[in-house]
Amino acid sequence: MMGSFSVKPVKVGICGLGTVGGGTFNVLKRNAEEIARRAGRGIEVAQIAARRPNPKCETGSTPITADIFDVANNPEIDVVIELIGGYTLAHELVLKAIENGKHVVTANKALIAVHGNEIFAKAREKGVIVAFEAAVAGGIPVIKAIREGLAANRINWLAGIINGTGNFILTEMREKGRAFADVLKEAQALGYAEADPTFDVEGIDAAHKLTILASIAFGIPLQFDKAYTEGITQLTTADVNYAEALGYRIKHLGVARRTDKGIELRVHPTLIPADRLIANVNGVMNAVMVNGDAAGSTLFYGAGAGMEPTASSVVADLVDVVRAMTADPENRVPHLAFQPDSLSDHPILPIEACESAYYLRIQAKDHPGVLAQVATILSERGINIESIMQMEVEEHDGLVPMILVTHRVLESRIIEAITAMEALDDVVGNVVRIRVEQLN
Amino acid sequence: MMGSFSVKPVKVGICGLGTVGGGTFNVLKRNAEEIARRAGRGIEVAQIAARRPNPKCETGSTPITADIFDVANNPEIDVVIELIGGYTLAHELVLKAIENGKHVVTANKALIAVHGNEIFAKAREKGVIVAFEAAVAGGIPVIKAIREGLAANRINWLAGIINGTGNFILTEMREKGRAFADVLKEAQALGYAEADPTFDVEGIDAAHKLTILASIAFGIPLQFDKAYTEGITQLTTADVNYAEALGYRIKHLGVARRTDKGIELRVHPTLIPADRLIANVNGVMNAVMVNGDAAGSTLFYGAGAGMEPTASSVVADLVDVVRAMTADPENRVPHLAFQPDSLSDHPILPIEACESAYYLRIQAKDHPGVLAQVATILSERGINIESIMQMEVEEHDGLVPMILVTHRVLESRIIEAITAMEALDDVVGNVVRIRVEQLN
Repeated sequence: MMGSFSVKPVKVGICGLGTVGGGTFNVLKRNAEEIARRAGRGIEVAQIAARRPNPKCETGSTPITADIFDVANNPEIDVVIELIGGYTLAHELVLKAIENGKHVVTANKALIAVHGNEIFAKAREKGVIVAFEAAVAGGIPVIKAIREGLAANRINWLAGIINGTGNFILTEMREKGRAFADVLKEAQALGYAEADPTFDVEGIDAAHKLTILASIAFGIPLQFDKAYTEGITQLTTADVNYAEALGYRIKHLGVARRTDKGIELRVHPTLIPADRLIANVNGVMNAVMVNGDAAGSTLFYGAGAGMEPTASSVVADLVDVVRAMTADPENRVPHLAFQPDSLSDHPILPIEACESAYYLRIQAKDHPGVLAQVATILSERGINIESIMQMEVEEHDGLVPMILVTHRVLESRIIEAITAMEALDDVVGNVVRIRVEQLN
Repeated sequence: MMGSFSVKPVKVGICGLGTVGGGTFNVLKRNAEEIARRAGRGIEVAQIAARRPNPKCETGSTPITADIFDVANNPEIDVVIELIGGYTLAHELVLKAIENGKHVVTANKALIAVHGNEIFAKAREKGVIVAFEAAVAGGIPVIKAIREGLAANRINWLAGIINGTGNFILTEMREKGRAFADVLKEAQALGYAEADPTFDVEGIDAAHKLTILASIAFGIPLQFDKAYTEGITQLTTADVNYAEALGYRIKHLGVARRTDKGIELRVHPTLIPADRLIANVNGVMNAVMVNGDAAGSTLFYGAGAGMEPTASSVVADLVDVVRAMTADPENRVPHLAFQPDSLSDHPILPIEACESAYYLRIQAKDHPGVLAQVATILSERGINIESIMQMEVEEHDGLVPMILVTHRVLESRIIEAITAMEALDDVVGNVVRIRVEQLN
């Protein structure tokens, strides 16, 4: 068989010619020679399914259909590239492509996080590959890094800034002292945030990506429904500034950690020591830290979204598929990094059973003894205090903000403590609680 | 063939049981189950070649020989892991293993940078794989990232902190104001630097790694002899501090850049804007930035050396070899990322033809008009000034340090300018010259 492929190009069909689809078409066209020099075989876009043309793409004589299923059913096509997004139609399309014996490349995190187990099982049955590097962190090849590059490791934890919109908002809040709602409006105007920003700012998009990362890191099935998700909509510039004064930055992190009892899978605002590399990832950029027992901590940084960064990962997947499509299916990199029959049933922990350190902001009346009461509540529950910062009385309300950072403690324990604090006569309103991770 | 490999483990032989060899043995043993769950096949250390035991390894009943060629000639062994280091014996060992039809995994950057073209040609002849992820940046899977993860890109440039010893020294100089020689002595005591530190501090080790990175990034043969190398031994704390005042950090970088005229391949101290992520990579840690036309700038960070980080990459390579050994050799990832018959002959540029911005420190007598003379020298050669910092007269010598940062200019042009400056009556001693890169 040696060299027999160098003649005939692989034929791919692009479904969806929006931002990522357009980028993929353009990269395949512009870098055709460079890519073929690597892959040892040309990659030809044989069909595009799109409801409307993309003004940024000169598709020339490439056949275009309005029906994505034309591509999935096209007997000439070897690989279907699903870039339409969403759960429903994309799900049908991918299953149809697999049923027709075609390999699939997708950038669809929601689809993989929610329907991945079913999709990979079908793909295995049919002996085809479903590649999804572009589904997490855009142009950063982090799926490959974890699934292959760190294959020697027992992975302990990973933590990622995996939503560019959220990171842009937090960066602006810190650097310019702007309020959340104000920055969100700008992000929408710049096209970084959707008209309905829920997926981004409530952490749902990050939870999709985290679900995928955790599966390939720990060898567990995809379990998006068990991910804990907390957004950044409640964050105030006051907390951003207090965190800064304590030597921390606030980032919206996806965290997955392996413990003896189970796996933590959680997305939430997080204080990180300001001197950590990941604390200095700003604007729309993404980064994922991975801690393995052999490699220690590694970090992978780059553009998390955008036309060509995401296309970079789609096309890298294509090159992988071109190489692996002729290999024994049992000898390919498994979809979820571990052989499908050796996935682990280590449970995902409910958030109450997760552990982290906490930043607490308490608004207290300017009476003596509040600190003592708060300290007693914590010590009675075995919660150690790492640092305390008591501020001056605030003029507008006469209240004293008290900032505490605790040692690591069970979530259920801190919730008890907060409930007790909020019941104190001298504590006003809710206690603000933000998790703290050292990431070293 | 489906599933037929799950029964029989792959047999590997470890040559060299020092730091990396010991780490590799231990990782393979400790994570045997995790690794087999990924690879779909066990990996068994069938033989070790070592002149003495490693107190950190419990080798138990694993057969040990003193002769590395016993491993290369052992008919039971599928993969030879070369971890003895050096150019001579390692070269013979790898060629013998290839001749015997065995796959090879190595952590030996010097061997690959100097003899890689020959080794890969032999490997191709014999249809075997030579894997070398561990040769660059220890536990960071950066070879895989560039060779596969960024396969869609035309790579524009890369820049790396790829020598931990040098970075440790520069970090200490900046953070603690210590002198080079002083920190070097400590690094030697800590075991970060060799008794003869030439390879590390003169940039030879970094040039080996850069040579490898440039080949896989640009698809050119390995050309270590054409790499430009400048060490950090001449760096003073004065320059570290002036750089800081200008908003820069000094790092010992390996830089490879594609230009129309050829490829720049250079290792030297470099000023980087302090807010770049790579400027904040401290201590013995490594990081490589890669800029591709589609992905934009990405960064890969982690431990660049050490027992288990390096072993992490050796074992990841093993898992790759286990998967690819049964594949059509023509369909594997090419050794140098590009198909061997489509490597480019784009030349490596001599340093005089390379371009960068420059930091210049001029010691001048406290006379009026020196700045005007210096500015004239630059402007006559079309060199624009980005910023100037003129310091107070120094008490101990009555001289005035003048710091300039230029725009980008040809190396040959700046050398002319420096020669002219040094000829001025009011300029004392040599002009200090350090390159500046923006890396954005």
